[in-house]
Amino acid sequence: MSQLHDPSIRTFTSDNAAGAHPQVLDALVTANGGHVGAYGADPYSTAFQNLCRELFGETAIGLPVFNGSGANVVALQSMVPRWGGVVCPASAHINTDENAAPERVGGVKLLTVESPDGKLTPADIERAASVRRDVHRATPLAVSISQATEVGTAYSPDEVRALADAAHANGMWLHVDGARLSNAAAHFDCTLAEVSSAAGADVISLGGTKNGALAAEAVVVVNPEAVYGVEEARKIDLQLSSKMRFVSAQLLALFGGELWRENAEHANAMAARLAAGIEAIDGCSVPLPRQANGVFAVLPGEVAERVSERYAFHTWDASTGLVRFLCSWDTTDGDVDGLIAAVAGA
Amino acid sequence: MSQLHDPSIRTFTSDNAAGAHPQVLDALVTANGGHVGAYGADPYSTAFQNLCRELFGETAIGLPVFNGSGANVVALQSMVPRWGGVVCPASAHINTDENAAPERVGGVKLLTVESPDGKLTPADIERAASVRRDVHRATPLAVSISQATEVGTAYSPDEVRALADAAHANGMWLHVDGARLSNAAAHFDCTLAEVSSAAGADVISLGGTKNGALAAEAVVVVNPEAVYGVEEARKIDLQLSSKMRFVSAQLLALFGGELWRENAEHANAMAARLAAGIEAIDGCSVPLPRQANGVFAVLPGEVAERVSERYAFHTWDASTGLVRFLCSWDTTDGDVDGLIAAVAGA
Amino acid sequence: MSQLHDPSIRTFTSDNAAGAHPQVLDALVTANGGHVGAYGADPYSTAFQNLCRELFGETAIGLPVFNGSGANVVALQSMVPRWGGVVCPASAHINTDENAAPERVGGVKLLTVESPDGKLTPADIERAASVRRDVHRATPLAVSISQATEVGTAYSPDEVRALADAAHANGMWLHVDGARLSNAAAHFDCTLAEVSSAAGADVISLGGTKNGALAAEAVVVVNPEAVYGVEEARKIDLQLSSKMRFVSAQLLALFGGELWRENAEHANAMAARLAAGIEAIDGCSVPLPRQANGVFAVLPGEVAERVSERYAFHTWDASTGLVRFLCSWDTTDGDVDGLIAAVAGA
Amino acid sequence: MSQLHDPSIRTFTSDNAAGAHPQVLDALVTANGGHVGAYGADPYSTAFQNLCRELFGETAIGLPVFNGSGANVVALQSMVPRWGGVVCPASAHINTDENAAPERVGGVKLLTVESPDGKLTPADIERAASVRRDVHRATPLAVSISQATEVGTAYSPDEVRALADAAHANGMWLHVDGARLSNAAAHFDCTLAEVSSAAGADVISLGGTKNGALAAEAVVVVNPEAVYGVEEARKIDLQLSSKMRFVSAQLLALFGGELWRENAEHANAMAARLAAGIEAIDGCSVPLPRQANGVFAVLPGEVAERVSERYAFHTWDASTGLVRFLCSWDTTDGDVDGLIAAVAGA
Repeated sequence: MSQLHDPSIRTFTSDNAAGAHPQVLDALVTANGGHVGAYGADPYSTAFQNLCRELFGETAIGLPVFNGSGANVVALQSMVPRWGGVVCPASAHINTDENAAPERVGGVKLLTVESPDGKLTPADIERAASVRRDVHRATPLAVSISQATEVGTAYSPDEVRALADAAHANGMWLHVDGARLSNAAAHFDCTLAEVSSAAGADVISLGGTKNGALAAEAVVVVNPEAVYGVEEARKIDLQLSSKMRFVSAQLLALFGGELWRENAEHANAMAARLAAGIEAIDGCSVPLPRQANGVFAVLPGEVAERVSERYAFHTWDASTGLVRFLCSWDTTDGDVDGLIAAVAGA
Repeated sequence: MSQLHDPSIRTFTSDNAAGAHPQVLDALVTANGGHVGAYGADPYSTAFQNLCRELFGETAIGLPVFNGSGANVVALQSMVPRWGGVVCPASAHINTDENAAPERVGGVKLLTVESPDGKLTPADIERAASVRRDVHRATPLAVSISQATEVGTAYSPDEVRALADAAHANGMWLHVDGARLSNAAAHFDCTLAEVSSAAGADVISLGGTKNGALAAEAVVVVNPEAVYGVEEARKIDLQLSSKMRFVSAQLLALFGGELWRENAEHANAMAARLAAGIEAIDGCSVPLPRQANGVFAVLPGEVAERVSERYAFHTWDASTGLVRFLCSWDTTDGDVDGLIAAVAGA
Repeated sequence: MSQLHDPSIRTFTSDNAAGAHPQVLDALVTANGGHVGAYGADPYSTAFQNLCRELFGETAIGLPVFNGSGANVVALQSMVPRWGGVVCPASAHINTDENAAPERVGGVKLLTVESPDGKLTPADIERAASVRRDVHRATPLAVSISQATEVGTAYSPDEVRALADAAHANGMWLHVDGARLSNAAAHFDCTLAEVSSAAGADVISLGGTKNGALAAEAVVVVNPEAVYGVEEARKIDLQLSSKMRFVSAQLLALFGGELWRENAEHANAMAARLAAGIEAIDGCSVPLPRQANGVFAVLPGEVAERVSERYAFHTWDASTGLVRFLCSWDTTDGDVDGLIAAVAGA
Repeated sequence: MSQLHDPSIRTFTSDNAAGAHPQVLDALVTANGGHVGAYGADPYSTAFQNLCRELFGETAIGLPVFNGSGANVVALQSMVPRWGGVVCPASAHINTDENAAPERVGGVKLLTVESPDGKLTPADIERAASVRRDVHRATPLAVSISQATEVGTAYSPDEVRALADAAHANGMWLHVDGARLSNAAAHFDCTLAEVSSAAGADVISLGGTKNGALAAEAVVVVNPEAVYGVEEARKIDLQLSSKMRFVSAQLLALFGGELWRENAEHANAMAARLAAGIEAIDGCSVPLPRQANGVFAVLPGEVAERVSERYAFHTWDASTGLVRFLCSWDTTDGDVDGLIAAVAGA
């Protein structure tokens, strides 16, 4: 197969626009060759299990899956019974970007909470928990937060702990959609566990793809009491890879050492550089705290339009002029400076 | 990541035990680097669309997905309304090896037909079509066949045509589960289309993984009238890859040239060699015609047990002593001869 | 079977606490005897079809079902494809009182809008319609309003028309949850159609139970283009009555003449009397307009508690002291005056 | 509402063609009037709970529902987890007459067994239990039998016991679809429990409608360990009646005394009379044992056609000439003799 794309093109549309880190591709080569057990009965999947325990604690179980929506639906479906509701911000990926998969495939009712900064508070949980509990109403039995959020903010370890405490005090489990867990951990300069499991999260959707994998995520069950039938859910929800060694190998390449942190720190740093550059431009602002690899900026309409001729990005809210620039593990200083110049020029 | 497995180990358990063909890994490297559109808006996915038209006809649409169950559920869910039933052999993968995914995720009712050789006949379709049609009963609106079947047989182009005609004459679409479509085409020495779309199939689950990919399949819609909302179904059924270029690249590596055929012919040849070797051994038999890369053999109980100490394989039916040996694109003459010798010795 | 309850007891908890109107029971006796076709092939079900056309227009189709949640789920499931979302107030019965049935059984994603008075506005629809439309997000394809609402308000014919226009202009159908459609029509002194179909509603859940039936509702499809497979949905959603003559007879008894209006007007009048009485009491208020048979009042905490010792009612929001009193077709002046006296005394 | 049907018309199409027993209508009148708690918080529903314990044993819980499909789906969904399969005859009502409700609403995979007489055997259960148990395959975790079956046969208490033992020995629960449980009990001249719970059934769908109710069935949970979330399943599956007193009253009228037995014995006796009459006619036969209220007879084609001009009945299998005559609680000697005469004459 010959190359069909121009690798010199850079965009700020999505961290899914970037490719895979070379070490991830190397891991695929290493894991290749010969015959191993299918569906997870291979040494790479076993190694990933061990790694999950190292990273997230002694009780952790890791189930590699294909994509983030898959991780979230498998996780949530396993955490609540058919009458269970999941409290989440209205802006949560599970509510806005997974079509009706949580509802249709997972059978999960989302109980959404408005949240301008994409974050839940313990008070939100208390309020959601205070509803009448009877057979007529979906019972709030889980909370799902995105770490980092869809609008570029992140929860500190203390904030996660407060949410976990509020959830547990009200009979709910805490799920962390960690498609960008690496970015959150990098931002707070702490471990993956410190912004999730060590702070009380029961189940984590661990993201590899945005961090530099081709297609690799995992459901990490920190608290086995929080799930029921999660292995079966992975199978039924079409997330069980036959040649799983290749999914596990990607996860090992990222999370077995410090590659995840390097990639995330780099993407975060590029976003910080970009945010600073944009804020310095008259008429532009970055209204939400930049805590991960995304910059949410307000640009004057004509500026956004002119910039979009040179750089692809996402219009988040046309009514307010809010746009999203996402930086990736492979975004360069030059990419960022080029974008800043384009904004300043426009 | 260091190598954790012994690549010299060979098994006959599954064609999912083998790894990826080096050209597939090369394609990943070629497709890597720079930024491309996510979710299929990339040149590799576009090239795969073009390839689908070349391979399966002008109206064909190809939707890359992660795995075979995913392809099947997306396809079938798009082919029948909520009251539609799908006629299939009781031994079909969708009935026996996808847990309750077709039912639970796809909402599809399977109308199973007993079939010792894994194949449907036009008479089976006629019989299934003859049921009372009213609101009380799931209406048979699609037929699903496996090409090649789960028991190692395959449909000739004429046989597919006869099934397609019977299906269409009775108001049903024809779906082909082509997890091993390559093996069927190689067996009949014809094109992929000749054993599927050109013979009347409406929708195909095109298999790449067993043929030498890491994880790459596709729903190929030959007849757009046969589906409703298939793009949305792929998303909702958790089969939409964000960095889709890497799934498409695998498919291009296999199906863009003759690699699929070489891999399938090789696996089939190894199975033929194995079948011949086993049939020549006293007390052993190969009751079903060997038409793909699987050999279904009856071994005396103690023989099977002794062989299993050296080679992994699958016991298909403990009550009859039927065992399954699957050959892969990387199975060698030496592997096969070693297994034959082990059987003969035991 | 002997009588086990005390028919002199009156409550204000729910219009489901009341029994059936004697004319409804008479209709059951009339429809009884001999053999008629099952599942709707009977003259009473045919008569109900004719009645639906008289009441809701020439294109109307009526499908009797067992209960209100059944009517809503059958209706909505038939109105949107698997990727469709339904815009509704957060306080809608489908969101708060049908557990996860719309999601789990109907596969419907609800797109909720905050609304203190339980009513949607055209602006709400415009806002909901303005979201990005792609495969990643559930597409808003229907709007559902409750007529009357769960908090005792109702939409005037003009308000329904404005919502229908906004919905249709944005590619959405309009569903009316008419569990209390009679009360809304009675309030505005107009026909059932004027507050629903004649004002642009496409599908109506027509309520009989709260109006004086034992268990009888119907999905009324005003616009056949708005639904797909609604007959099959009724069957699959477990709402198809075998001895349907008895469901249809209840509906005929209520809607075949003016009984529905008499019952609704009476219940509304009782609620009006109650609202006036409560508002006249110092420290008590009725914050939302009383437009149907429910009175939502704010009582001082200790008052509510003392009243509850004599009359059962529903605490709507413990944090604000809001309580709900529902009047039924059989509530009497004496019942209301007794309650007012109890509140005044407490 | 005026009478629209001719009560003198009699058919043999279905026991759903008959109306309600007058004592059932009387019970509705008795239960009417005044206010009682909704959704089961009424004395009639409490009395039905007590009755269930009397009839089916100390641990029994009864959940009134609207119809037979509803009872079956609520029961089965509560008995197996999302990866559970239900072993049943291919001719089971849940497989042939509930569209895809068990699959789509219940998420239940049916594992069908061919059975000419509509009955399962312990060997069928053993065989179904012998499949490979892993995540890839739906696990057989429940058995469902119809008592009496869809083809007019019934299981003796000993046969039920043998099935229950086989099910339990293989880790499965036993569900009895008792839409015609009364007819089975009447046939064996024993109690309802003796042909179900006392013989080991864990959950029963108790049928009232065919026995003389308007619309009243119940899920009777004999063994609470066999279900999970059955109350919630009833709500979500749209089977929770708001004015439940009227469903419970119907069940009390039938099962609170001997009315169920009188009705069933009468219907069975009419079927016996009919079977004898038909068997005595040259060229006609009754191939399956007549053990309930249905007669499955083989009539010469032209005879069936001529009879159908005078009496409605159901053609069960056009290819074999098998037709079904169902007798009801209100079928008379005259009705039967008229039909016999019509067959003899034709």
